[in-house]
Amino acid sequence: MTTINTKVLPGFMELKPNEQIAFNKMLDEIRNVYELFGFRPVETPILERAEVVLAKSGGDTEKQIYTFSKGDTNMAMRFDLTVPLARYVAEYENTLVFPFKRYAIGRVYRGERPQAGRFREFYQCDIDVLDKDSLDLSYDAEIPAVIASLFRRLGFENFTIRINNRKVLNGIFEEYSLKDKSQDILRIIDKIEKLPKDVIVEELEDLGLDDKQIEDIQNIAELNKLDQEELVKKLRNIQKNSSILKEGIDELEIVVKKIKDLGVGEKNFAIDLTVARGLDYYTGTVYETRLNDYPEIGSVCSGGRYDDLASYYTKNKYPGVGISIGLTRLFDQLYSRGLINTDIQTPTKVVILSMVDDDKYAYSLAEYLRENNIETEVFSKEDSIKKQLKYADRLNIPFVIFIGEEEVENNNYSVKDMKKGEQVKIKMEEIIKYIS
Amino acid sequence: MTTINTKVLPGFMELKPNEQIAFNKMLDEIRNVYELFGFRPVETPILERAEVVLAKSGGDTEKQIYTFSKGDTNMAMRFDLTVPLARYVAEYENTLVFPFKRYAIGRVYRGERPQAGRFREFYQCDIDVLDKDSLDLSYDAEIPAVIASLFRRLGFENFTIRINNRKVLNGIFEEYSLKDKSQDILRIIDKIEKLPKDVIVEELEDLGLDDKQIEDIQNIAELNKLDQEELVKKLRNIQKNSSILKEGIDELEIVVKKIKDLGVGEKNFAIDLTVARGLDYYTGTVYETRLNDYPEIGSVCSGGRYDDLASYYTKNKYPGVGISIGLTRLFDQLYSRGLINTDIQTPTKVVILSMVDDDKYAYSLAEYLRENNIETEVFSKEDSIKKQLKYADRLNIPFVIFIGEEEVENNNYSVKDMKKGEQVKIKMEEIIKYIS
Repeated sequence: MTTINTKVLPGFMELKPNEQIAFNKMLDEIRNVYELFGFRPVETPILERAEVVLAKSGGDTEKQIYTFSKGDTNMAMRFDLTVPLARYVAEYENTLVFPFKRYAIGRVYRGERPQAGRFREFYQCDIDVLDKDSLDLSYDAEIPAVIASLFRRLGFENFTIRINNRKVLNGIFEEYSLKDKSQDILRIIDKIEKLPKDVIVEELEDLGLDDKQIEDIQNIAELNKLDQEELVKKLRNIQKNSSILKEGIDELEIVVKKIKDLGVGEKNFAIDLTVARGLDYYTGTVYETRLNDYPEIGSVCSGGRYDDLASYYTKNKYPGVGISIGLTRLFDQLYSRGLINTDIQTPTKVVILSMVDDDKYAYSLAEYLRENNIETEVFSKEDSIKKQLKYADRLNIPFVIFIGEEEVENNNYSVKDMKKGEQVKIKMEEIIKYIS
Repeated sequence: MTTINTKVLPGFMELKPNEQIAFNKMLDEIRNVYELFGFRPVETPILERAEVVLAKSGGDTEKQIYTFSKGDTNMAMRFDLTVPLARYVAEYENTLVFPFKRYAIGRVYRGERPQAGRFREFYQCDIDVLDKDSLDLSYDAEIPAVIASLFRRLGFENFTIRINNRKVLNGIFEEYSLKDKSQDILRIIDKIEKLPKDVIVEELEDLGLDDKQIEDIQNIAELNKLDQEELVKKLRNIQKNSSILKEGIDELEIVVKKIKDLGVGEKNFAIDLTVARGLDYYTGTVYETRLNDYPEIGSVCSGGRYDDLASYYTKNKYPGVGISIGLTRLFDQLYSRGLINTDIQTPTKVVILSMVDDDKYAYSLAEYLRENNIETEVFSKEDSIKKQLKYADRLNIPFVIFIGEEEVENNNYSVKDMKKGEQVKIKMEEIIKYIS
C-alpha cells in the first residue's frame, strides 16, 4: 500500500477542527477590531514577481524566501504583508483615498530552519496608515489604541505596549558622537533586556566604544524606570546639539499625550528606550507589545513608522505607520500554555433526531432554526439513535431535539439541554428563546 | 529610479478596497451558511509535500502544479482543497468524529495559461461529508440544500442545481454494451449541451459507435425533458440486466425525494442525465449548478460523491460527498456583468470631526460607538476640515459627527446623515438609534 507521508511539512501549522474554531475566533476578533477603527481590507496574491519581493530584502530574509520559476516568470512567495502593501500603493496610487488605512490578514512564507515556535507558513494580521507626502502624528497614537482594544477583546488585561522613537535613539547617538555606529548599537540595544549585562558590555566594547560611551548606552535603559514626564525631561537635558533628538522628543511627547487622550490606560503602555526594532526602515515611532504574565513569549505585536514606504516602487513619497501580529506564533504560544479554549468542536448548536417516517418535520424545523441563525444538523432515522447521540456527545453539541410520533401529534418538540441534562417539551416558537 | 513592475502577475486577481469589501461579504455569507449546516472548519497549508499533491493527479493537472524544492524537500502548492482533505483525514482518522462534515475556504494554485475568466490563484469554498466504510445517502441530498440556501442568501432565485448519478450513466452504458468506452462517452456527454449535434455525433462515430448506439446516447439527453417521475420510469424501462443501473436509479430516486423533503424548490433543482463531471473519482451522485439568467457562466458550483476519497493515503475506506464553489471566478463573472455592488468603500460608518482643543470628547465618543459595534474614525482638528469632509465624501461614509465648542458646552453632538443631507443635534445615547 501507500507510503505517502501524510504529516504536514515541518514548520507548518495544521489544526484539528476544534483548534481551528478557536483560531478562527481570534482571527475574527482581530478583523472586527481593525474594521471598528475604519481600516479597509486589502488582499494581495501570495505569489509575486520575484523582483517585487526581492527589491528591498537582503541577507537573512532573502535566503528564506521561496522563489521558483514557471515558464519565463520568476516568482516568489511573499514573506510579509508590508512589501505587497508598498507595491499595491504604488500600483493604485491614483485611485486610492488617502489617508489610506488598510488592514491585511493572510499567510506569509519564510523558509527558516524549523524550530519550536517558528513557522514557515504563518498568519500576519497587519494594519497600516499611509498618506501622501506627510502623515499626521495622531495615527502613531491611534495604532496603540487599536492594539489595546484588540488585546482586551481577546481577553487580556495585563499587557504593555512599549513605545519608542527611532529619532530619539539616533539623536542620542548623535549627542554621544556614536552616529557612525548607530545601526550596530541599535541591534545591541534591542537585546539589552534579553542578555546579561556583561555580554552587552562586551558587545559594545567590540564595537570600539570607550567606558564612558558604554555607560551612556546603558544609562538609556536606566531612563525607562522614570515616569514619563521625568523621562522626557531627562531626554531634554541630554539634548544639546542634535536637532534629530529634539524632533524625536517632540514627537514622542505628542504621541504619548494622544495615546492617553485616546483612553489607553497607563498600565497598558510605556515609553521604552530599548525598543529599537531590527528592521532598518523604521524612522520614527516604534512599538512592541508584551503579555506581562508571559514575558518569555516576547513581543506579540510590533511595528512602527517609516518615512517612505513605497520608495522601491514609486517616485512619490508615502510615509506610513503600522503594526503586525504574528497570529500563528501567538496562537501556538498561548495554546501550549493552556490559554486557548478548544471545547467547541463544531459550529453546530442543535442536532435534530427524527424518529418518525416523514423527515419533513425535522427538515422544516432545521430551516426555521437556521433562518434564526442557529447552526443545526438533522439526523434521519436511518442511522441508529445510539450513533447519533454519540456524535452529539463527542462534538459537545449543546442541544438535541427529538421528534417522535407523540411530538408530531401534539405539534411540539422535546428539547434536551445536554449540559444541564434537562429536557422540556415546547412549541417551535419557544425553541429560539430556550436555546439562547 | 525604479523600473519594478507593480502589476500583479497575469492570472492573479487583486481588488480595490471597495471590491474587496464586496468579495469578503460573499466569502462571509458562504462561511455562514456552511456553519449553519454544521460543517466544521479545516485549514490546511498551501504548501504540501510534492508526493502528496502528485499522488493522484496526472496529465493536464500535473503540468499546472507549482512545484519547487527547498533544501531536500520537494514541495508543491495545492491545486485544490480535496487532495489536502484526503491527506488530513488519513492523518487524523483516529481522532476525527465521523460523519466528518468539514468546510474549507482558501486559495489554490494552477499554472494554467492565463485567459479571461481563468485564474492561477483562486478561492475554493468547499464542503464535504465523509464517513468511515459507508456514508448515508441523506448527505447526498443535504448538499443541494446547502447550495440552495447559499445562493438564495447571495441574492439569487433563478438557479438550478442539476443532479445525476454516475451509476445511472455507467449502468446505461452497460445495458447498451458500451462499458469499455464509458470514460470517453462520459467526456462527450459532458459537452452535449455546449456543442452542436453534428459535432457530438462525429465524436461518437470516432469512438466506433454504430448508429443505434449513437441514437441511444442522444436519447439520454432527451430524457431530461421529462418530469422527474416519468424520467425515473423510463430509466427503469431501460434497466434489464445491469445491477449498477438499478442501484443508480434507486439512489437517484431516494436522493431526489430527500431533496424535496429538505425544502429545495423544484425550480431550483433538476435531474440532468448529461451531467457527468470530468473527474474520474466521482462514483455516485454528481452536481452542477447554473445561474439560469447567465447560462454562459457555466457551472458555478459542482461536485459529487466518491466511494473512496483517501485511498492514496490510508488503507481505510472513506466515502464522501461534497461540492466546491470557485469564488474568484464567480465573483469575476458577476462583477463583469455589473452584478456586484461595490458602493461601500470602507467599513467606517461614522467619522467624527473634532474642532475643539481637547480631542478627548471625540475619542470617548468613538470608543462608545465602537463598543456598540459601530465602525468609527476620528479626525483631529490638525487636518483641514475641507480635507476631512472630502475623505468622508470620497469613501461614502454615511454619517459625520461634528464636535465644536457649542456641542461640548451643551453636551450634545451634531450628527449629519450624508445621504439625506439632514443634520440633527442629539445626545450621545440617542446616536446609536439615529444611526441604525
